[in-house]
Amino acid sequence: VSAADGQFSESAARVAAWIEDYRRRLPSLPVLPDLTPGDILSGLPERAPERPEPLEALLEDLDRLIVPGLTHWNHPGFLAYFSSSSSDPGVLAEFIAAALNVNAMLWKTAPAASELETRMVEWVRGFVGLPPEFDGVLQDTASSSSFTALLAARERALPGTREHGLFPRGDAAGRPRVYQSDQAHSSIDKAVIAAGIGLEGIRRIPSDARFRMEPEGLHRQLSADRAAGDVPVMICATLGTTSTASVDPIAEIAAISAEHGVWLHVDAAYAGPAAALPELQPLFDGWQRADSIVLNPHKWLTTPIDCSVLMYRDPGAVRRSLSSTPAYLETGVEAKNRRDYGLPLGRRFRALKLWFLFRRLGAEALRSMLRSHIALAGSFAEKIVEDGRFELAAPPSFSTVCFRAVPAVADGEDSGRRATNAWNRDLLDVVNRRGRVFLSHTELSGRFVLRLAVGSAWVRPEDIDAAISELRAAYESLAADQPRRRSD
Amino acid sequence: VSAADGQFSESAARVAAWIEDYRRRLPSLPVLPDLTPGDILSGLPERAPERPEPLEALLEDLDRLIVPGLTHWNHPGFLAYFSSSSSDPGVLAEFIAAALNVNAMLWKTAPAASELETRMVEWVRGFVGLPPEFDGVLQDTASSSSFTALLAARERALPGTREHGLFPRGDAAGRPRVYQSDQAHSSIDKAVIAAGIGLEGIRRIPSDARFRMEPEGLHRQLSADRAAGDVPVMICATLGTTSTASVDPIAEIAAISAEHGVWLHVDAAYAGPAAALPELQPLFDGWQRADSIVLNPHKWLTTPIDCSVLMYRDPGAVRRSLSSTPAYLETGVEAKNRRDYGLPLGRRFRALKLWFLFRRLGAEALRSMLRSHIALAGSFAEKIVEDGRFELAAPPSFSTVCFRAVPAVADGEDSGRRATNAWNRDLLDVVNRRGRVFLSHTELSGRFVLRLAVGSAWVRPEDIDAAISELRAAYESLAADQPRRRSD
Repeated sequence: VSAADGQFSESAARVAAWIEDYRRRLPSLPVLPDLTPGDILSGLPERAPERPEPLEALLEDLDRLIVPGLTHWNHPGFLAYFSSSSSDPGVLAEFIAAALNVNAMLWKTAPAASELETRMVEWVRGFVGLPPEFDGVLQDTASSSSFTALLAARERALPGTREHGLFPRGDAAGRPRVYQSDQAHSSIDKAVIAAGIGLEGIRRIPSDARFRMEPEGLHRQLSADRAAGDVPVMICATLGTTSTASVDPIAEIAAISAEHGVWLHVDAAYAGPAAALPELQPLFDGWQRADSIVLNPHKWLTTPIDCSVLMYRDPGAVRRSLSSTPAYLETGVEAKNRRDYGLPLGRRFRALKLWFLFRRLGAEALRSMLRSHIALAGSFAEKIVEDGRFELAAPPSFSTVCFRAVPAVADGEDSGRRATNAWNRDLLDVVNRRGRVFLSHTELSGRFVLRLAVGSAWVRPEDIDAAISELRAAYESLAADQPRRRSD
Repeated sequence: VSAADGQFSESAARVAAWIEDYRRRLPSLPVLPDLTPGDILSGLPERAPERPEPLEALLEDLDRLIVPGLTHWNHPGFLAYFSSSSSDPGVLAEFIAAALNVNAMLWKTAPAASELETRMVEWVRGFVGLPPEFDGVLQDTASSSSFTALLAARERALPGTREHGLFPRGDAAGRPRVYQSDQAHSSIDKAVIAAGIGLEGIRRIPSDARFRMEPEGLHRQLSADRAAGDVPVMICATLGTTSTASVDPIAEIAAISAEHGVWLHVDAAYAGPAAALPELQPLFDGWQRADSIVLNPHKWLTTPIDCSVLMYRDPGAVRRSLSSTPAYLETGVEAKNRRDYGLPLGRRFRALKLWFLFRRLGAEALRSMLRSHIALAGSFAEKIVEDGRFELAAPPSFSTVCFRAVPAVADGEDSGRRATNAWNRDLLDVVNRRGRVFLSHTELSGRFVLRLAVGSAWVRPEDIDAAISELRAAYESLAADQPRRRSD
């Protein structure tokens, strides 16, 4: 069998043409497909073919079966979640990385990939203005980065856990605790479950009216827990929460973490890149005192998914919490083996896409892009409020706006709140079904809230205008349709 | 800022031409670079550039700085570890996946990617002859797949761990235990550390003279632990161990796991695809009774790294052990959300490369490839033994051969063993420095042993012949150089 198809350049050119054609069609495709689960599956044969098929057959099926069933993350109207998009440099770098196929598990198995990774972490660190005390590695996602940080924090707070486990620790040992605001990302919950600490170990510190962790509440809880003999493992502060992109008061939290000697992890997966803008530096004041920070270039820096940067002050703490080296992985070389800084052994050559990104676009253009996204979000917030039928549900933050429609029903009492929630749910549904833009939602203090997040390499001012007009049109169609509404 | 460079097809063609040129040069490059840590780093600027640079500058630097510093996993002489290579279909699929950039975290965020993933797991399952009772997901690596399986096993053995954690469980609770042979992969150790069970929770069951777990030992240990009140969490059996590719007696182990009611995880990361060969089915007898199985297409099925298939019988057990859904990820759709079956939230469109692989090559050709690799490994084992100066260190298994040189020194006593180990270490060093082939090593019962593993899409018969001649040449140069040897 020849694994190569013998005409690589021709095939690659055909695929590149397919991609270009897809991109041309993209703005006219619905962002979200209209499907029910199982629709795609039923069109796919149950068994792999025995014989080879031509590339053309695959590209046709891609058009016929796959593209109509995709939610198009690179669509200019994708304004949901935190918009993640892939710009050209990263796409080309992924193409090269797949062809090279090096596994950067050990320095020896990919020296240049390992050292380029070191440098790319430094470039990101420099871009966002963090001091050289931070070392780091690339991971797939913030979930994995935060999990790795939690394991390091766990080993620091409960030394010997890697050997003895959390169980049993004898009578003297206290309950491990992880502190985060009620707005922290679900990946921290998952990390706490996975690490064997259990969800009950989480202390959800209330946030204020602007969805920022209340430092006083953190301090109180930490003091109470320590008095009770519990073991504080980690504080997770968020710079750019998932619901509202709110910013925890990091300087105050860092001071509390220092006072109590607790590992401070900062989740800046989304908003981290904005630290590159001098005018936003005040929001990040104090994050340089964290023990670990996560920041995802695959979110707001337009690298293809997946690419997450985990930075930490104490490489030894991360390595000791997890590493385990069998004979067949010993290399006899004194060098940083990246398998020791995360769960997976095998590691893709992710540094390549950061190298292509920074060099092809330049830091200046990336800062301009961040500024333009923030401006677009700001203009959306202004216009949607001006409309009169919508209100902000949280202060716009970075490039994220939480808002909702104010329907012609009273809020404030329970039935009114339910009706308002249902109205907004339906509104979102109508907007997303129309397919021009894709917005997402969240819940804030029991209120169903719509979210618009700008962050794509492909977004244009007209897409933000389209979001406004789609919301207005949906509002009007719902109002007209009021008596026949499906849900309430 | 425009994130697209405005001439995608031209850039892609330039990159494809670069890849083709790289492939042309590849056989004449040394597999392993001759470097010391820091060599690459010092050639890379400390900060990201402010202004954009042309693609050509990047490709030149790729040639000048990166390629000379890579261990070339797609080199036809790469015969180390488990050879992992990327054939054309997967490379093209990765190119497309990066351009689409969908995030298959939820069904809703990528319906076609989610359902193609379902089908591709079924194709792999059908290819290796496993029954339809197995469901599954794609993960990055076997480390992550096995960790996910361990979390499911942990929750089954210790219900409520996701809520309460492993700590404290009160006086009545026993010590969690994980069973594996002394040949199991280090990823299980890492998983046990990460899950909070601790390395001391591992029971390393001795293996026999052919490096297969002794079922009697497993049974004895399980019985003793249960009598002592410990809690057996998981048995990990390996079909194709990392050192020798040995095969644990899976039918017997499955019977023991059923008798004791313990989760059985099968690590077939490397050898799993060989179950597609009817003549090898006996080795896999019983694996269909496992609770979970991991198999890595990025190892022996030539998909670009990363791509690991985790299969399990009870999807609910996996989901319950880890999932946690915040409001902003609720979709109101009854469908399988893949974020619930692993730690990471964000997930690449990995199914695409399996689709391209199976359809462009066909199952028949993949089986032929597996057979040809096994035959090449067999012929290597024969020839190296015929030489007279080498001996097998374990029975050849699948496409893996463990062997070592018999130097002109006595073995059997301690100083002899040390000398033989040193001789083989030097021999490997000489071979790998010559750069024509790359072999790796392991340790078997205190002996330093060389390993050759065939598994690349790019390997040719002449590369196996080259391995023989390189070993002979190295032997001769070492023998001639005997008085001046560096190490003993």
